[in-house]
Amino acid sequence: MRWIVAAVCLLWSLTAQAQNPLPSWNDGPAKQAIVGFVSRVTAKDGKEFVPPAERIAVFDNDGTLWCEQPMYVQLAFILDRVKALAPQHPQWKEQEPYAAVLKGDMKGVAAAGEKGLVELMAATHAGMTTVEFERIVKDWISTARHPRFNRPYTECVYQPMVELLAYLRSQGFKTYIVSGGGVEFMRPWTERVYGMPPEQVIGSTIKLKYELQNDRPVLQRLPKIDFIDDKADKPVAIQKFIGRRPIAALGNSDGDYEMLRWTTAEGQPRFGLIVHHTDAERKYAYDRDSDIGRLDKALTEAAGRGWIVVDMKRDWKAVFAGDLR
Amino acid sequence: MRWIVAAVCLLWSLTAQAQNPLPSWNDGPAKQAIVGFVSRVTAKDGKEFVPPAERIAVFDNDGTLWCEQPMYVQLAFILDRVKALAPQHPQWKEQEPYAAVLKGDMKGVAAAGEKGLVELMAATHAGMTTVEFERIVKDWISTARHPRFNRPYTECVYQPMVELLAYLRSQGFKTYIVSGGGVEFMRPWTERVYGMPPEQVIGSTIKLKYELQNDRPVLQRLPKIDFIDDKADKPVAIQKFIGRRPIAALGNSDGDYEMLRWTTAEGQPRFGLIVHHTDAERKYAYDRDSDIGRLDKALTEAAGRGWIVVDMKRDWKAVFAGDLR
Repeated sequence: MRWIVAAVCLLWSLTAQAQNPLPSWNDGPAKQAIVGFVSRVTAKDGKEFVPPAERIAVFDNDGTLWCEQPMYVQLAFILDRVKALAPQHPQWKEQEPYAAVLKGDMKGVAAAGEKGLVELMAATHAGMTTVEFERIVKDWISTARHPRFNRPYTECVYQPMVELLAYLRSQGFKTYIVSGGGVEFMRPWTERVYGMPPEQVIGSTIKLKYELQNDRPVLQRLPKIDFIDDKADKPVAIQKFIGRRPIAALGNSDGDYEMLRWTTAEGQPRFGLIVHHTDAERKYAYDRDSDIGRLDKALTEAAGRGWIVVDMKRDWKAVFAGDLR
Repeated sequence: MRWIVAAVCLLWSLTAQAQNPLPSWNDGPAKQAIVGFVSRVTAKDGKEFVPPAERIAVFDNDGTLWCEQPMYVQLAFILDRVKALAPQHPQWKEQEPYAAVLKGDMKGVAAAGEKGLVELMAATHAGMTTVEFERIVKDWISTARHPRFNRPYTECVYQPMVELLAYLRSQGFKTYIVSGGGVEFMRPWTERVYGMPPEQVIGSTIKLKYELQNDRPVLQRLPKIDFIDDKADKPVAIQKFIGRRPIAALGNSDGDYEMLRWTTAEGQPRFGLIVHHTDAERKYAYDRDSDIGRLDKALTEAAGRGWIVVDMKRDWKAVFAGDLR
């Protein structure tokens, strides 16, 4: 008898998983909207059927797939790199914006503005080959830890969104990241963490240059911005890289507003979703007045445009995978 | 008995197809090299096994997948567009390089040089939305005909290469176009003709701008070059779009030299292939002295670098699909 019980249990668990592909989501309007949309576009004889090749879903990264507070993870990387490189640049102790970074003076870093940030980017993201930079990112991401949650940043990814990625893929969707973050800062770990292969990660880029080093071809990273994948340039990047309009866009800030507009503009069915950070207790709460991930215009227009607003506190049973354990 | 004969015949034909996935290729060193490479990287227990996710193959387009003589197809498109738009620009009759185009004076067009070509590009490829441009390309490609072969350009694609694309895909490869041609000139027909979805077509780009037209988001095409995907910038584009080094690169000219170097640089197994146009009778013969698709340096270095040189006349049983009928 025992094997029958075991078989029934296994069957039950598999069925439960198939019936509930989003276990970290509470039952509610957000989850219902997701499942409803996916069911409609995959129903072969339905009016809203979308062929698999056109099931493109684009996800913002910072604040949508992983934590962007108390600072963008890539900024934490920049600050750590400046500290690591400082011994080779003794003059940085007296030279802004480096001096502020080395003193841990975040107000001073902020005061250096965009120009300062571009300089820090150039000093930490350029001057090496793509292969060398990949190694630097991999080393850093495997050791750096989130200051509040005291765990690797790659464990500060939102479990409900990881489940959503897997669910969409299981339904024939091709999922992409479309992020303002540096593409070569993301690709070294997105496959392992999100199941997102490098060719499905779109982000900001710096100029690259092909050259021969000892007759060996390399791609050298130049200290020059190529493309900032944010705001009105997110639809531009989508067109450039994917070449067709997605049917689903998921973001969390006004930086995703144009991507949401472009995706949901016309033609049905289309799906827009905004992750609203409402959970000060488990994670963070911020929206209209935040410097990081400001969510104002997109939140105001969400209802009128049919975009689903995920209330993190209400809609998510767990936030990080660790919370489930 | 008859059904047994039919079944045996079907089985035999399926087996033959599986055993000969490249029917337009003559048996010879080129075909053997292709099949040998694919067998090695897909043999699960072999030393040279490559996981499917890393089986990236990049193909040049003009002269590699379709005919680039007597002029690049995109240039034929430009000339036709100038003629179609001329009634709206009466001044073009007196104004170079338009006047030369309208008179059919190809030497005059050539005399206008790169500056003239950029102006013709801007006049014909910009000033409309991406959706409008897609429609223009689709209309043109469905009616324009090759001047020598008197058939649509999309029937001037190389059947052996189309078979190779299908063969590689059947063996778990992800195939990409990496072309100097305009990406939005290719994407409207590459899926139908090559089975290549838009997100796997990489090419030259002009700047795009997101804007609202009557509160409807559109992407406007601006008369400004964004990126020329040729020569040393082909590896740059591969890194930007795919984010990993391919294991196979296929081209036909010195414009593909750096892409071949980058792909086959180090790490085994790697595969480089050059289509050498040797067939004046059935198609065209050209290499070191040609203005279009000049093949000089890459041809000289091919043997030393282990790149396979396809002798079109010797290695291809048929060139266009129509030749088989």
